[in-house]
Amino acid sequence: MSSHTHGNLIIGQSGGATAVINASLVGAIEAAMQERQIDNIYGMLHGIEGFLKEDIIDLRQQPTEVLSRVYATPSAALGSCRYKLQQHDPERVINLLRKYNIRYLLYIGGNDSADTAHRLAEAAHHMGYELQAISVPKTIDNDLPFTDHSPGYGSAARFIAVATMESTLNTLAIPSHYPVKVIETMGRNAGWLAAASALGKRNDIDPPHIILIPEQAFNAQRYLEQVEAIYRRIGYVIVVVSEAIRDEQGEPLGSAGQAGKDAFQHPLLNGAAQHLVELVKQQLKLRARFDKPGDLQRMASCYISRTDQQEAFLVGKMAVQALLAGENDKMVTLVRHKEPAYHCTTDLVELAKIANEQQLIPAEFLDESKTMVTQAFYDYALPLIGEPLPQHAKLKMTRIRV
Amino acid sequence: MSSHTHGNLIIGQSGGATAVINASLVGAIEAAMQERQIDNIYGMLHGIEGFLKEDIIDLRQQPTEVLSRVYATPSAALGSCRYKLQQHDPERVINLLRKYNIRYLLYIGGNDSADTAHRLAEAAHHMGYELQAISVPKTIDNDLPFTDHSPGYGSAARFIAVATMESTLNTLAIPSHYPVKVIETMGRNAGWLAAASALGKRNDIDPPHIILIPEQAFNAQRYLEQVEAIYRRIGYVIVVVSEAIRDEQGEPLGSAGQAGKDAFQHPLLNGAAQHLVELVKQQLKLRARFDKPGDLQRMASCYISRTDQQEAFLVGKMAVQALLAGENDKMVTLVRHKEPAYHCTTDLVELAKIANEQQLIPAEFLDESKTMVTQAFYDYALPLIGEPLPQHAKLKMTRIRV
Repeated sequence: MSSHTHGNLIIGQSGGATAVINASLVGAIEAAMQERQIDNIYGMLHGIEGFLKEDIIDLRQQPTEVLSRVYATPSAALGSCRYKLQQHDPERVINLLRKYNIRYLLYIGGNDSADTAHRLAEAAHHMGYELQAISVPKTIDNDLPFTDHSPGYGSAARFIAVATMESTLNTLAIPSHYPVKVIETMGRNAGWLAAASALGKRNDIDPPHIILIPEQAFNAQRYLEQVEAIYRRIGYVIVVVSEAIRDEQGEPLGSAGQAGKDAFQHPLLNGAAQHLVELVKQQLKLRARFDKPGDLQRMASCYISRTDQQEAFLVGKMAVQALLAGENDKMVTLVRHKEPAYHCTTDLVELAKIANEQQLIPAEFLDESKTMVTQAFYDYALPLIGEPLPQHAKLKMTRIRV
Repeated sequence: MSSHTHGNLIIGQSGGATAVINASLVGAIEAAMQERQIDNIYGMLHGIEGFLKEDIIDLRQQPTEVLSRVYATPSAALGSCRYKLQQHDPERVINLLRKYNIRYLLYIGGNDSADTAHRLAEAAHHMGYELQAISVPKTIDNDLPFTDHSPGYGSAARFIAVATMESTLNTLAIPSHYPVKVIETMGRNAGWLAAASALGKRNDIDPPHIILIPEQAFNAQRYLEQVEAIYRRIGYVIVVVSEAIRDEQGEPLGSAGQAGKDAFQHPLLNGAAQHLVELVKQQLKLRARFDKPGDLQRMASCYISRTDQQEAFLVGKMAVQALLAGENDKMVTLVRHKEPAYHCTTDLVELAKIANEQQLIPAEFLDESKTMVTQAFYDYALPLIGEPLPQHAKLKMTRIRV
């Protein structure tokens, strides 16, 4: 395919939103506006699902002031979707692309979105339609393969790191009130966000004390032994759990198997944190409660990592460069450099390699207990969360005794 | 009592911590250090419970740099307690105060803490011990009477307001994914924090759509009708609920009455948000989930309201002035002024009036539905949350159609 094709560009956002996915959008728009061979710049509303309904807007005529503010606004400004292409969809999409003379497609998203972009690239090829499709990585779960990390993770990781430090400050005020606290993070199959809870931990006593990730099957007895041992040693326990952890039978924690029925005789799905709290209350007779920040961890503008935001912008911009270089059916990746200091450049990987591959937490990031991270994880994750974490002050404890 | 007694001062923190309770502590320490008639400045660790064990530290010798950092650190730097004085405790406390020649007592806390300070003032009077006890208001619940509002509320209210706005951004990215979201706030008997979720709402469509507060008995049918009507109109629904709401029989929502039993045949306490989510899933067949920020809402340094922080400092400082003016058995209150712009001065109220009184949300702050606040609430609460709320940008939606 020629790298000098003229045509229109369309950009879509797909999958769960993040605090920085709009930085990728703005990176792509700003780069595309500087290129003569890109004619119109379109946005699809609510991803490919909206495109199938021809929900398309003009992105070239956005006021500059709007773009700079959208850059800093969490969530997907174009709207997103969680839509799996049905049998005849790829053909329908290609016909619509032809109708709008769209020759360049950028799709910002995670695993499923990369799969969508790949299927569209293949369909265009089979239908003899000249299209270049590039996927732009985005996920708070950090489970995309072939990239050092994914834009969106750094900001959500920063939220979880600070939340663990500051929620624990409340426990420390009166440890005996609720000595056990569970904090539930997102993360479908990978424990990257739960692991990030340790990024403010300086020593053995600092929170968290137990990290439960989907990569490790949950064993209730081992968990209760750990909680009890830590409680006996320091008087309180902070547990961080991925919402998706499973027991040794592969069942999600807190699913119908463990829980009861409600007044309507429907099974109650309590969620992982609630289940862990109930275990502690019933088996150890300790007061326990949980925080479940939910969507806040992916949306809170207060915790945006500048590094993450800048990298999200970079992958959007470099996706346009890839299009202009004639690339197709690929995803932009981040490549880490440590000299002279941490920074990332980008590369490309074939989309065919992405689908059905997940980047899980590697063995070397977990210590022997499998419930705490190693120094190698700190080395990996600390540069991603941006500026230093807040420092909390303590009074000088000079005791008075008459 | 003479206002020129020499003696030592002791300061304690009690009840649930806040993001600004340490500003009150530092306000009191800095004011006390400038007064000659105050000799030593002590801190009791973990409130009156720690004082009974003589867990006392020196607050006069704190490095200046420590105080300025403690000012900005959430949670109770002295540690807190939730301890109800037992029968012989007041006498024991007075004897310990005598042992340490403590003539001035500042107790930073909420309702229960004010009651503790009052009982100690009474005990000192009965025992003929010269003591001045002043209570310093603190509570995220904002339920202390006789004060316009309580330090700690403004920052937690800011957290809830921003959380509601930003968590909703995620819903808006794909409304069909989880069209109903419930956000659970703290608040023991008063709905002030849940009400604060509306502070970023500019119009009828903005979140939240339904606010459920403890002052109004919960009716499941009315709730489901409201959720369904809003869903039909705009396609998604954001509900904010106080953790302490009760049904028309006075039972907490999600208590054993409604919930089932777990595998151990113990009743499951699901909490208000989980219960509201289950109701929607089962009765309306809509996907629903919840965010429960928990302790984050009281601890997050990112959301500290400068106004709140400055007022927390002020009440600490003015409590020392009250001691020097010979006051006793009183709580510092905030008095609102609107000219030339919003600001507060302080006054005093007798502690005897505080105990067992709660400031609930007044009728004029709720509209006819009782599930939404009025302009009067905005006028009351907006000045308390400090700088303007974040503005989120939207793309200009110029549709393209070939």
